Amino acid sequence: MSGSVLGNVFTVSTWGESHGRALGVVVDGCPAGLDLAEEDIQKMLDRRKPGQSRFTTTRKEGDEVQILSGVFEGKTTGTPISMIVWNKDQRSKDYGQIAYSYRPGHADYTFDQKYGFRDYRGGGRSSGRETIGRVAAGAIAQKILGELGIEIYAYAKSIGPVDIDYEKFNKAEIYNNKVYMPDAEAAARAEAFLQKKIKEQDSAGGIVECVIKNMPAGVGNPVFDKLNANLAKAVMSIGAVKGFEIGDGFDAARSTGSVNNDEFGIDESGKVIKKTNHAGGILGGMSDGADIVFRAAFKPTPSISREQHTVTRNGEEINMVIHGRHDPIIVPRAVVVVESMAALTIVDLLFSGMASRMDFVKKIYER
Amino acid sequence: MSGSVLGNVFTVSTWGESHGRALGVVVDGCPAGLDLAEEDIQKMLDRRKPGQSRFTTTRKEGDEVQILSGVFEGKTTGTPISMIVWNKDQRSKDYGQIAYSYRPGHADYTFDQKYGFRDYRGGGRSSGRETIGRVAAGAIAQKILGELGIEIYAYAKSIGPVDIDYEKFNKAEIYNNKVYMPDAEAAARAEAFLQKKIKEQDSAGGIVECVIKNMPAGVGNPVFDKLNANLAKAVMSIGAVKGFEIGDGFDAARSTGSVNNDEFGIDESGKVIKKTNHAGGILGGMSDGADIVFRAAFKPTPSISREQHTVTRNGEEINMVIHGRHDPIIVPRAVVVVESMAALTIVDLLFSGMASRMDFVKKIYER
Amino acid sequence: MSGSVLGNVFTVSTWGESHGRALGVVVDGCPAGLDLAEEDIQKMLDRRKPGQSRFTTTRKEGDEVQILSGVFEGKTTGTPISMIVWNKDQRSKDYGQIAYSYRPGHADYTFDQKYGFRDYRGGGRSSGRETIGRVAAGAIAQKILGELGIEIYAYAKSIGPVDIDYEKFNKAEIYNNKVYMPDAEAAARAEAFLQKKIKEQDSAGGIVECVIKNMPAGVGNPVFDKLNANLAKAVMSIGAVKGFEIGDGFDAARSTGSVNNDEFGIDESGKVIKKTNHAGGILGGMSDGADIVFRAAFKPTPSISREQHTVTRNGEEINMVIHGRHDPIIVPRAVVVVESMAALTIVDLLFSGMASRMDFVKKIYER
Amino acid sequence: MSGSVLGNVFTVSTWGESHGRALGVVVDGCPAGLDLAEEDIQKMLDRRKPGQSRFTTTRKEGDEVQILSGVFEGKTTGTPISMIVWNKDQRSKDYGQIAYSYRPGHADYTFDQKYGFRDYRGGGRSSGRETIGRVAAGAIAQKILGELGIEIYAYAKSIGPVDIDYEKFNKAEIYNNKVYMPDAEAAARAEAFLQKKIKEQDSAGGIVECVIKNMPAGVGNPVFDKLNANLAKAVMSIGAVKGFEIGDGFDAARSTGSVNNDEFGIDESGKVIKKTNHAGGILGGMSDGADIVFRAAFKPTPSISREQHTVTRNGEEINMVIHGRHDPIIVPRAVVVVESMAALTIVDLLFSGMASRMDFVKKIYER
Repeated sequence: MSGSVLGNVFTVSTWGESHGRALGVVVDGCPAGLDLAEEDIQKMLDRRKPGQSRFTTTRKEGDEVQILSGVFEGKTTGTPISMIVWNKDQRSKDYGQIAYSYRPGHADYTFDQKYGFRDYRGGGRSSGRETIGRVAAGAIAQKILGELGIEIYAYAKSIGPVDIDYEKFNKAEIYNNKVYMPDAEAAARAEAFLQKKIKEQDSAGGIVECVIKNMPAGVGNPVFDKLNANLAKAVMSIGAVKGFEIGDGFDAARSTGSVNNDEFGIDESGKVIKKTNHAGGILGGMSDGADIVFRAAFKPTPSISREQHTVTRNGEEINMVIHGRHDPIIVPRAVVVVESMAALTIVDLLFSGMASRMDFVKKIYER
Repeated sequence: MSGSVLGNVFTVSTWGESHGRALGVVVDGCPAGLDLAEEDIQKMLDRRKPGQSRFTTTRKEGDEVQILSGVFEGKTTGTPISMIVWNKDQRSKDYGQIAYSYRPGHADYTFDQKYGFRDYRGGGRSSGRETIGRVAAGAIAQKILGELGIEIYAYAKSIGPVDIDYEKFNKAEIYNNKVYMPDAEAAARAEAFLQKKIKEQDSAGGIVECVIKNMPAGVGNPVFDKLNANLAKAVMSIGAVKGFEIGDGFDAARSTGSVNNDEFGIDESGKVIKKTNHAGGILGGMSDGADIVFRAAFKPTPSISREQHTVTRNGEEINMVIHGRHDPIIVPRAVVVVESMAALTIVDLLFSGMASRMDFVKKIYER
Repeated sequence: MSGSVLGNVFTVSTWGESHGRALGVVVDGCPAGLDLAEEDIQKMLDRRKPGQSRFTTTRKEGDEVQILSGVFEGKTTGTPISMIVWNKDQRSKDYGQIAYSYRPGHADYTFDQKYGFRDYRGGGRSSGRETIGRVAAGAIAQKILGELGIEIYAYAKSIGPVDIDYEKFNKAEIYNNKVYMPDAEAAARAEAFLQKKIKEQDSAGGIVECVIKNMPAGVGNPVFDKLNANLAKAVMSIGAVKGFEIGDGFDAARSTGSVNNDEFGIDESGKVIKKTNHAGGILGGMSDGADIVFRAAFKPTPSISREQHTVTRNGEEINMVIHGRHDPIIVPRAVVVVESMAALTIVDLLFSGMASRMDFVKKIYER
Repeated sequence: MSGSVLGNVFTVSTWGESHGRALGVVVDGCPAGLDLAEEDIQKMLDRRKPGQSRFTTTRKEGDEVQILSGVFEGKTTGTPISMIVWNKDQRSKDYGQIAYSYRPGHADYTFDQKYGFRDYRGGGRSSGRETIGRVAAGAIAQKILGELGIEIYAYAKSIGPVDIDYEKFNKAEIYNNKVYMPDAEAAARAEAFLQKKIKEQDSAGGIVECVIKNMPAGVGNPVFDKLNANLAKAVMSIGAVKGFEIGDGFDAARSTGSVNNDEFGIDESGKVIKKTNHAGGILGGMSDGADIVFRAAFKPTPSISREQHTVTRNGEEINMVIHGRHDPIIVPRAVVVVESMAALTIVDLLFSGMASRMDFVKKIYER
């Protein structure tokens, strides 16, 4: 385990630092015969690109992806797909204080502790730019899921104190406002709240909710590689995520069995359904055919313009001000990252579950 | 990925069903030279054993562990450690309705969907008894951590609506009451609440909190194999866990950067410390030297004695009553399981991080 | 990587020492719905059992296998299959000299170097008894392959200086003689040769050849996880194997392209075939539809009754005589182990290749 | 398992096709603090570069490597190291016959069988150019081993019928002749032999031998992940390798225990040594402190200019001539690839063995 590789059958290996030459990802285990073009990747990357609004960093990056391998005549070949995005806007500057001080809420100190030193230009591997590789790989995973009729979408459920109202839920609205909320009124209040935080040289957190529709039942595993466990890992591996819950999540801890259990029934077409979905689409680690619904809690952006107290590498206490380009909130750009991590997890579990039954094995290999 | 193997360098492979012949685990990657006796394992297993109180199932299982390999003259040899617990109290009974119906809140339906059929005697692999292997392996992990001065302990933070009061926190009290709460008054209220639930033929959920003390800084990885991500996976893989959070968790989503950032300082001994611990001991996926604090939300026990509506394998709607031995709450017996999963995760990350620096590598191999 | 786990989708974890309580294996990733009984396992184990002839150790072990989990009503459930064999004939004896000396050709010295000490009762993990777990798991793999029409068989190609004559090849003969040769005359000469070695207090080596018939084309991978590479690893992981070759193997190094290339043609049924099989059934790391043919070279049994020079743990030079029960040759009992390792490798590659094409994925998941 | 990822703690992920935009590799798990420059990589790549002599293809590729991540101020940072080489000399040509026919001895047919179609421009992933990623990663592994005093070198032991004479072995000579032989006279004869093969429009095979000096004892594992097993896999995963042997290899199968066993002794400095090295430096899957010596058999280059019989995708029998640039032998350029695969294997085992003893663990984590 070396830390930057995810997945067992559908394997993703990301690389690159915020201020290095480039960032990228290698996806190994993508099936042959999938239609894939750079536009498929680009449209997902554009959703996490900086410079889209006042609430995202003004750093200018085209973030144009190139596919370097694994695609021939518009189709995946089954061999590794390498994708790259060049870093362009590496403003040359004096990293001075950052080079030898530990920014609160950042990984500077822990990098020094683990590795003995660190690349102090920006966040290095801990930068949000590392998610470029995740989103590029996730775009491929989403294409695969699309072919199987499985849909994944995420949105901001809350921004600071502002929650969406499910009565006003409108999926199309998600892509209509700068904070990716499915409720236009909440979005307007969230934007006002963020303006206030910027003025205060402060930052905010929020919650992203993700829905997976049309999942076949029986995907995942009963013990360690539960669908919910692997989703939790994938989502918690996004920088700034501090909590994960599925279905009723923490509320389930206050509920009772008679309320929390989802009773089974038969729908008009004769299919087994659950009458409620407190479980969030997963029972015993495997999908139950209902929508999968999970949430991720993001902490406030740690980079704030306000003066903060901290220490240097040499053990000197100082006050520091972090100059530069900061998002006042991570959530809007993280929405597509959450989708991507969910898609990567689902595809890996779908693929690794193809041998779970002898009749599946025979479908492929019996002549 | 076959679902019942966890870890990369310290690998755990559990096996066994609730009503099969036995359950067990193979631990591969345990260092040679660790003192290990069956008592070390047994004392942890005894904490999850049924039949300890009115709030745990009355099934009678000695759950006596045998170490079958990997230990010689009281020391681990570095080869796989196989441990086994025989099932004794497999009451022969008519599984009738359970054999062909789907219990709400259980994995019966998803097992049938994934595998085409299922072992209908009890929960099979989804039974709480599967955690025997986890706790046995976790006991070894805890021994290793003990040698390094790292301490892990967990407790019930809430049972249904009853929360502990941190003003009254008393660690020694945890092992003094039947619900593993570190607050005797809350424990008394929780016990009364559970009595009520039993009378109502209902069940309750709760929250387990876990603390890891004396962690060296720099353990974990910056990208996918973050310490928090691997903890999340390990803990979410415990049946009935619906949420995971670290540090301020979901509350961080409502906080601001100026509050949530933990400022660094220097303590009297000249060591770098954080003045607060909103992060819960992890920054950028790596331990920061502060206490690691995380929480897991458990849903109410799905097995309740009340009649519930459900369907059969053949698509018939029925009302069913689940007879047998049910805990009204999972939390008390799950406390040691949470500790175990944390210990397994930490040990695997400690071991896989030993090659993170050339000076570490040279410490071992340079002559 | 902890050393005793093999496979990615079909995972095998063996445990146990020659003189411990028991030996066993956990197989995770076996598909549900396979008919499986203890007899299926036992008949393979009986082929490696000691005490069958003068050429195998006279240690008396029933080696009766028990299936402890993963099978219900005669069918695999898709969950881990745990199998155990108890050690019975652990003669209590004075291990004296062996306990502190390094037997030539054995792993005593390297164990001490790696782990700091060792279980000195017999070979521990390096004993041939460790292969019990491999053969038990291999029996399951062979059952799966049988369902797909794939056949694996191995035999002794040479014993010391005695080679089989392919003109006299008779598959049925393999199970007719004590040295598992498919040529009765060669077998007779080999037996005479071995009698001589026993008299001389010496031992012999030999070559096992293995054939896999009816392989579907396209199994394996083009780069690291080539079918031949994974076979090589699996077979070289059997104790005493010093060489592995496929198809013409080392002879190919002396051949020319015009001779060594297998030309393609069309058979009567219109199927693509190769006119020769110098490649041994694998091109570019993937099966080509022809028979897979490989060989493994076994060194002579290192335990011989003759006096040998060696050193003790404390650096003292001594002469030692290894008392006890030794096979004069490993090959006959290793034949079934080679088959098992081949079967485990093929099954893991078949299962991990099920997602290599979008049309395969759709066959399983499209509704 | 997706086929293009190797290693567990030191992980290598290669990508790219012979006629795609670029080829490259991501190395995850390299320790922080290693001095690393592009020159370190380039000098190894130059050893496998085409166009060096008449015996290697005349394709012109600078094969200049760029390090895109993971290195800061001349030192590795512990994060993934991405390296890339752009393809330049992609002659545009009519791939006509190759596009729809199966070249004998190549992977065209098996690619079509596995993936349903293939990138027909050159060998795609099966091209020798894929080894660029292996050699680039291997250069890093060799640097790490150099820091620990471990040396790896390989050379041609035989080319067609021409063998080196160990009496004339001269290590410096390896880099002096075009066929990488440590014996100048044999090299001259080999070159003459290859000239003849070129004239005959034919090709030749050969054997590469590799030596690893100064290995610490105790590296590797007793069961599946034996040092010899992992070496075998790594080396057999090089295209065109048909056989692997260690120490006396296949000759050991004809030897006797009394000859083949290496007796232990004490050298002048009081160190345990083996008096002979039939084992090739490995006992029971672990290094024994003696030189590790192994050999790989390479088949003749399958691309020959002579007309060959084969079939098309559509099942038509044809005669084909493969135009283009072919090496008459693979061995000289493969020497550095063998070294690289050995280095990758050793580093991964060294790193994964750091937790094999509690005293090792304490050396790193005890304060």
